[in-house]
Amino acid sequence: MPQWLKIFIPVFVGGLIYQVPAPAGVMLRGWNLFAIFVATIIGVVLKPFPMGVVALLGLSVAVATKTLDIAKEGLTGYSTHIIWLITYVFFIARGFIKSGLGSRIAYFFVKLLGRRTLGLGYGIAVTELIIGPAIPSNSARAGGIMFPILKGISESLGSKAGDGTEKRLGSFLTQVCFHGNLIVSAMFLTAMAANPMAQAFAAKRGIEITWLSWFQAAFVPGIISLILIPLLLYFVYPPELKSLPHAPEMAKAKLKEMGAMTKQEWTMAGTFAFMLILWIFGDRIDVNATSAALWGVSILLLSGVLKWEDVLNEKEAWHNFVWFAILITMAKYLEEFGLVTWFSNHVGYLVQGLPWIHSFIILVLIYFYSHYFFASNTAHVGAMYSAFLAVSIASGTPPLLAALILGFCGSLFSHMTHYGSSSSVVLYGTGYVPITAWWSLGLLVSMVNILIWGIVGSVWWKYLGIW
Amino acid sequence: MPQWLKIFIPVFVGGLIYQVPAPAGVMLRGWNLFAIFVATIIGVVLKPFPMGVVALLGLSVAVATKTLDIAKEGLTGYSTHIIWLITYVFFIARGFIKSGLGSRIAYFFVKLLGRRTLGLGYGIAVTELIIGPAIPSNSARAGGIMFPILKGISESLGSKAGDGTEKRLGSFLTQVCFHGNLIVSAMFLTAMAANPMAQAFAAKRGIEITWLSWFQAAFVPGIISLILIPLLLYFVYPPELKSLPHAPEMAKAKLKEMGAMTKQEWTMAGTFAFMLILWIFGDRIDVNATSAALWGVSILLLSGVLKWEDVLNEKEAWHNFVWFAILITMAKYLEEFGLVTWFSNHVGYLVQGLPWIHSFIILVLIYFYSHYFFASNTAHVGAMYSAFLAVSIASGTPPLLAALILGFCGSLFSHMTHYGSSSSVVLYGTGYVPITAWWSLGLLVSMVNILIWGIVGSVWWKYLGIW
Repeated sequence: MPQWLKIFIPVFVGGLIYQVPAPAGVMLRGWNLFAIFVATIIGVVLKPFPMGVVALLGLSVAVATKTLDIAKEGLTGYSTHIIWLITYVFFIARGFIKSGLGSRIAYFFVKLLGRRTLGLGYGIAVTELIIGPAIPSNSARAGGIMFPILKGISESLGSKAGDGTEKRLGSFLTQVCFHGNLIVSAMFLTAMAANPMAQAFAAKRGIEITWLSWFQAAFVPGIISLILIPLLLYFVYPPELKSLPHAPEMAKAKLKEMGAMTKQEWTMAGTFAFMLILWIFGDRIDVNATSAALWGVSILLLSGVLKWEDVLNEKEAWHNFVWFAILITMAKYLEEFGLVTWFSNHVGYLVQGLPWIHSFIILVLIYFYSHYFFASNTAHVGAMYSAFLAVSIASGTPPLLAALILGFCGSLFSHMTHYGSSSSVVLYGTGYVPITAWWSLGLLVSMVNILIWGIVGSVWWKYLGIW
Repeated sequence: MPQWLKIFIPVFVGGLIYQVPAPAGVMLRGWNLFAIFVATIIGVVLKPFPMGVVALLGLSVAVATKTLDIAKEGLTGYSTHIIWLITYVFFIARGFIKSGLGSRIAYFFVKLLGRRTLGLGYGIAVTELIIGPAIPSNSARAGGIMFPILKGISESLGSKAGDGTEKRLGSFLTQVCFHGNLIVSAMFLTAMAANPMAQAFAAKRGIEITWLSWFQAAFVPGIISLILIPLLLYFVYPPELKSLPHAPEMAKAKLKEMGAMTKQEWTMAGTFAFMLILWIFGDRIDVNATSAALWGVSILLLSGVLKWEDVLNEKEAWHNFVWFAILITMAKYLEEFGLVTWFSNHVGYLVQGLPWIHSFIILVLIYFYSHYFFASNTAHVGAMYSAFLAVSIASGTPPLLAALILGFCGSLFSHMTHYGSSSSVVLYGTGYVPITAWWSLGLLVSMVNILIWGIVGSVWWKYLGIW
């Protein structure tokens, strides 16, 4: 696509929405922000300029049109703790890599599973499955744990970001990790921050969801999804290296060559264990995942595993910081300016008078695909879960079924974009997967996942007696 | 000083304060934060680690002790518009330098005034004096305008930061620019953002300050200060290059060599003119200085004067961003947790029963030197001006005199530290002046300034009939 068109399309679409009168019940500022947000998102995808530039332009327009007040609103995204979790996690990943521990774990992985690329993919998915129930921050999992391993495996097998070797291995593993992370997030009440929010919203309407009932309902479609999606990716987005007959031996030799763990590796491992414990037990002892990451970064800086220069040199971290915070800000004010409420309320009219199965399917699809307009799972669940649950129940859907399915959507609707969840921001930041592939694979996986959860799920939930 | 002592002192002092029981009327969280803030400041000055690391450690402790909640409080500094003004201004300065316009203006300066270093110093002071009344953001002045000129002049005459040539020229000019900026800020109601705040606080007590009455009162001590301080710096912190007999010819030749302005320079000049107009008329058309800088950065990125990589590479900007935002956050919550109010209230007891001249001098000195604990002029004026004005008037000081002097302090109290005003953050960030020199010169200038404004001022204000 020529550069002028990449500039023209977002400006045109944004301008079009902007000049349409705001629908009744929506603040003018909310409508204008919607136009700017849509234009920014299109710009972020078409990339006439790097994402950071597009986001800054979006913010410039929002401020210039007095849609957002720079002193009170326009910069608020920069102080959200999730933004800093992502940023800290980039620094921690650097510590893994720099200390050598990242390569060591990666070689260990390759030694065990490295004969086939698909095996490595499943290794990553299983790792997610094991740590998932214990770590409610899916971005801590994706960024703090999987990202350095992923990068280590790929680089050790000759697949680096930015030098044309991405598709050998790294791009496939990144996608498996990303989608696996979200599937696991949907499987356990404690695998994603927004799940307990959904639980609480449901409880307000008298619907009781326990850890076990969530798990029971999610386990069967979840496991099938976790088995099929890596396979799907393997065929539609194949790694160039499929079979690596000598990789395990190579890894073994490399591990031998590395010798005993160095002091820096031990420090890194200790710091990691410390963060892991806090990420697992954080909820119980009231420690935020971002605090744990901040302490981890502090320990790495104090012990010299990381130098301050390393932090300042982590350009990818600063890049993500700039653009993602702006999207977070816009999404937040879309909600504050009443656009989300207006939208949720109007969905009710749409499904009036339909049989509950039809209306519920429509509601779920709208809930699901409206995530193109969100930059966070928790924000989306917080803004729309409750209203959609109410409409679903009012139109006759069995309450527990509605509560659970909408709950699962809270993770699964993030498959589509590179900004829909903080885990996607980190993994997209690896640079292994270009944006067009990210979005088209995301759409495909989202549809396959809807089919799996819809078909297998409904049989399973019928069997469980949920409907 | 050995490394262990640099670590021990802040930890010891902070720990000492921490374990003292909070005084009556101060929230425990406020007192604990005070201890952490003091330790962080000492650490920032002694620098056992780079400032960014010290600040992150301070934040880590604040979060670990539950003094600040990371999700709601600990990161708020990162979304303040002043932090982003500083950050954007670093990018704009890069545009000046990269486009070549910075060197051109610098050569022009040198051609005019370059025969003597002192002349260059006064050239900088006079430039501040000319643009000061029109630009109420002293950090926009220091960072967006003077910083690139300063750097251009110094580098063109062989004085660079970080390679041992700082003291040839750059360190002296930086100090002149810094102190000149603050003196000019004190001279005009419209030269610093906190001045109109002081005016408003005074008006609440029925004291009318106009642009003209402020200027009349400040002009005489201000001009004397602006003449003497560069001279003082010239003797106590002399540049190695004092006389530059061939510099004007060299500059002339260089300008000839540069030829006509390039397209990039014109773009930069146009962007600069655009920002300058917004900085001047911003108040009247309701445009924040940060918005103007954001638009400036956007134009530079769109036009290609800056590449996105340049922004990500601007390490000094990110470094300042990290540490200064943490100090801003801590200072903000010192106020919110009631420590500042408690302090202001207790000052009243201290001066009870003294003749008004004595008590007012004590009050002014306390108001002035308490700025060691503030990371912003507006925060300090906002937190303490009103209370100190009330106590001063209650102890018999002529109201207008008290209002004006406390008003002038609102700029002058920032001479001491490298974090006391956003302009100092930018100028310290040039790297020309080490922290020990910054602090000792700051203390010296602050005392000389108090003498100038105190002695010359009181005669002049008597003559004007203010007391």
